[in-house]
Amino acid sequence: MRCDRLWRGARLATLAVGREGLGIVEQGVVAAKDGRIVYAGAADEAPAFAADETIDCEGRWITPGLVDCHTHLVFGGDRAHEFELRLAGASYEEIARAGGGIVSTMKATREAGESDLVASAVRRLDALIAEGVTTVEIKSGYGLSEEAELKSLRAARAVGAARPVSVATTFLGAHALPPEAKGDKAAYIDRMIALLPRIAAEKLADAVDAFCEGIAFSPDEVARLFTAARELGLPVKLHADQLSNLHGAKLAAGFGALSADHLEHTDEEGAHAMAQAGTVAVLLPGAFYFIRETKVPPVELFRRHGTHMALATDCNPGTSPLTSLLLTMNMGATLFRMTVEECLAGVTREAARALGRLGEIGTLEAGKSCDLAIWDIERPAELVYRMGFNPLHARIWRGA
Amino acid sequence: MRCDRLWRGARLATLAVGREGLGIVEQGVVAAKDGRIVYAGAADEAPAFAADETIDCEGRWITPGLVDCHTHLVFGGDRAHEFELRLAGASYEEIARAGGGIVSTMKATREAGESDLVASAVRRLDALIAEGVTTVEIKSGYGLSEEAELKSLRAARAVGAARPVSVATTFLGAHALPPEAKGDKAAYIDRMIALLPRIAAEKLADAVDAFCEGIAFSPDEVARLFTAARELGLPVKLHADQLSNLHGAKLAAGFGALSADHLEHTDEEGAHAMAQAGTVAVLLPGAFYFIRETKVPPVELFRRHGTHMALATDCNPGTSPLTSLLLTMNMGATLFRMTVEECLAGVTREAARALGRLGEIGTLEAGKSCDLAIWDIERPAELVYRMGFNPLHARIWRGA
Ligand SMILES: [Zn+2]
Ligand SMILES: [Zn+2]
Repeated sequence: MRCDRLWRGARLATLAVGREGLGIVEQGVVAAKDGRIVYAGAADEAPAFAADETIDCEGRWITPGLVDCHTHLVFGGDRAHEFELRLAGASYEEIARAGGGIVSTMKATREAGESDLVASAVRRLDALIAEGVTTVEIKSGYGLSEEAELKSLRAARAVGAARPVSVATTFLGAHALPPEAKGDKAAYIDRMIALLPRIAAEKLADAVDAFCEGIAFSPDEVARLFTAARELGLPVKLHADQLSNLHGAKLAAGFGALSADHLEHTDEEGAHAMAQAGTVAVLLPGAFYFIRETKVPPVELFRRHGTHMALATDCNPGTSPLTSLLLTMNMGATLFRMTVEECLAGVTREAARALGRLGEIGTLEAGKSCDLAIWDIERPAELVYRMGFNPLHARIWRGA
Repeated sequence: MRCDRLWRGARLATLAVGREGLGIVEQGVVAAKDGRIVYAGAADEAPAFAADETIDCEGRWITPGLVDCHTHLVFGGDRAHEFELRLAGASYEEIARAGGGIVSTMKATREAGESDLVASAVRRLDALIAEGVTTVEIKSGYGLSEEAELKSLRAARAVGAARPVSVATTFLGAHALPPEAKGDKAAYIDRMIALLPRIAAEKLADAVDAFCEGIAFSPDEVARLFTAARELGLPVKLHADQLSNLHGAKLAAGFGALSADHLEHTDEEGAHAMAQAGTVAVLLPGAFYFIRETKVPPVELFRRHGTHMALATDCNPGTSPLTSLLLTMNMGATLFRMTVEECLAGVTREAARALGRLGEIGTLEAGKSCDLAIWDIERPAELVYRMGFNPLHARIWRGA
C-alpha cells in the first residue's frame, strides 16, 4: 500500500476508543496519506507500505497530538502587575485603582487591534505547540461588547491560520458583565443572544459558552442563551460549579452540552446527568492551583458514573496564566489524584470528545487526522510525573 | 574604557546588595571584560566604552543568571512508574515490591556508570539552562556507599564540565540509611565521616549536607558529621525541619551553615538563630507541592527576623521531579505567598548567598562573573506570574 510517511520503530499509546488503558502497542508503526492516518498499530500486522518517507523512531513513544480543549488565549494586556501587588499585600480596592481585575483585561482587549490580539495569542500558543499540542480551543470573552467579541473571535480564527494547528473557537460573550451594563444582566444576555445569528452566519464560533456563577450569570440567563444557540445549531458548553453549586453541570447536561468545565462543586446528580448526556467533565487544575482553591472536583463521582474527564490549561490572565499541558497533567495527578491514564486520555481522546471532534482527532486510529506527538521517554507516565521538563522529540500536524 | 561585550538598551534588575527592591535601572548597560562585569548600571552614568561587540537589547530585561542552589540532579533510574502505581491506588508494600522508593534510586545509582550518571543529569540540567540558569548546586546522596557517593560527586563535577555552567557540588552521604546498614545509623555516619578527608583532599565537594529527620538522621548524628566537616574546612548545609521540628534550623545555624533547607516546621527560635548566623533559608515549594504538604514554611517569621530566603527546585526523583526555576518561583508565590521581589531575589542573590558565592555571582555588579539572563518581558513580575512559559531571550555565562 502506498503512503506519504511511515513512522516505524515506535511504541504507541493509541488511546483508541474501546482499547484497554492507553491502548499500548510496543512494536508499532503509523502510516499517513493525505494528512490522515491510514494505519496505526502493530508492525507485524501492518500491510506492506511503500512510503515516500520512512522515519525510524528508535523506540520513542508516539501519542496523539495533544488537545487543549479550554483556553482563553485571546486577550489584551497582562495581569502580572496585579499578581505582584496582591502578593505585596494590596487590597482589592488598591488593585482595582491600579487597574486590575477582569475590567483591565476587557479594556486592553477592546483597545487592542485584531492583529495585536493575534500576535500575543500566538506567543502563548507557541508554548503549547512546543509541547506537542495540535488542536486548541480558544474562547472570546474579554471583549464584552458586540464589536470586541467579534474581533476576538476573528482573532482566534486568525491564530489558527498563523500556525500549523487546528483551532476550535468558542463564543463566551457571557463571561462577565461589563461595567457599562450597570448591573443589568438580563439586558446584556439579550445583546449576546442578538449577536448569535451573525456569529453563526459568519461561522466565527464552533460553540457557545457561558460562566454560570453568582459573580457572573444565573442558570436562567444561561438557559436563555443556550436555547438561542441550540436554535442556530451551535453546540454549547459551560463554566459550571467552580465556586459554588448552582447545578451548572446538570443544566449543561440538559442542553446536551459538549462539556461542563471546572466542576469543583458538582454533586452526584450533576455527575450522573453529565454521564447520561455524554457531556465531558473538563477539569482545570491550573485555575484551582492559582487561586488556591481547596475543594477538588468530584473525580471519584465522575469515575463511578462513567462521566468522561478531560484536562485543559484554562489559559487566562486572571486565574490561570498557564501554557503547559504537561504541567496541567501533573496538576491533575498531584492535586486531583487522577491516574496517569486519566491524565493522558484527558489531553487527547477526552479533550477531543469535549470539542465534539473525536471522530477527527484525539486517538491514533485509521481515518483520523495524522496529528502526532513523538516523545523522548521510556514510559508514558513520565509525561505526567515530571514538572518543567519537555521531552517532545517531534510534532506532526495533518501528516507533516 | 575597553571591554569585550556591551549590552545596551536594556532594563536591569540588578538585585544589587543594598539597593532597594530589585535594584531596577530603566536605561541600563552591562559591560563585560574577561568574563567579568566591569559595569552594570545607568547608561548615562556609564564610562565611554570601546567594545569588541555591542548588543542592542531593544528594551529587554536583564537579570543575573539564575542560580539553582539545591538539586539532586545526579541519580540513576526513574520513579515515574512508582508515581503511576501510587495514583492507581497501590499500597506502600506493592510499590516496594515493584522496586519503588529511595532504595530503587540507590540501586540504579550504584549500577550506573559514571558517564551514565552524567548523561542523565545533563539532560535535566539542560532544562534548567534553557530557563537562564548559570549556576547549579548538585548533591550526591543516592549512592549511599563510599564508592557510589564518590562516583556521584565525580559525576556532578563532570556535569559542570559538560555544559557552560558553574556547578557547586555537595556531599550528601547522610541522605538515607542504605538497607545493608541494617538500621545502624551511628556506624553509617562513622563511615561517611571517614570518607570526608578523601572528599576534601580530592576537592570533590564544596559543602557537606545531611537529612535531619526521624526517617533519616538525628540531630546528634548530624552534629558529629558537621563537626568533622568543619575540621576539614568544609562548609555545611542541612535538610531541616521538613516533616517535623527536630530543631534542625537551629542546629544548622549553630554550625554557621550556609543554608538550612525545606523548613516547613521551623519555629521562631530557629528562624532567629538562622538570621543571626547568616544561614540562608532555602525554601523548596516543588517538594511541598509534589508530596502534598499542608504546612507552609514560616515565611513571615523569616521576614520579621531578617532571615535571607532563597528558592530552589530540589530536583530529585522521589519528591520533586522539577526542572524549572520559573515554575519554582510561581510556586513560591502561589503556595508560600512570597512576593515577586522575594522570589526573584531567591533564585539570584539569595541563592548565591546560600552557596557562599555572593561575592562571585547572583547580582549585576562590577567585579562579578558576567552571568546574565536576558528576557523577552515587559516587567520582571511576569517571570513569577506565568506558568509553563519561558521568555528567555539569551543566556550569558562568564561573558559569553
Ligand atoms: Zn475558562
Ligand atoms: Zn533535597
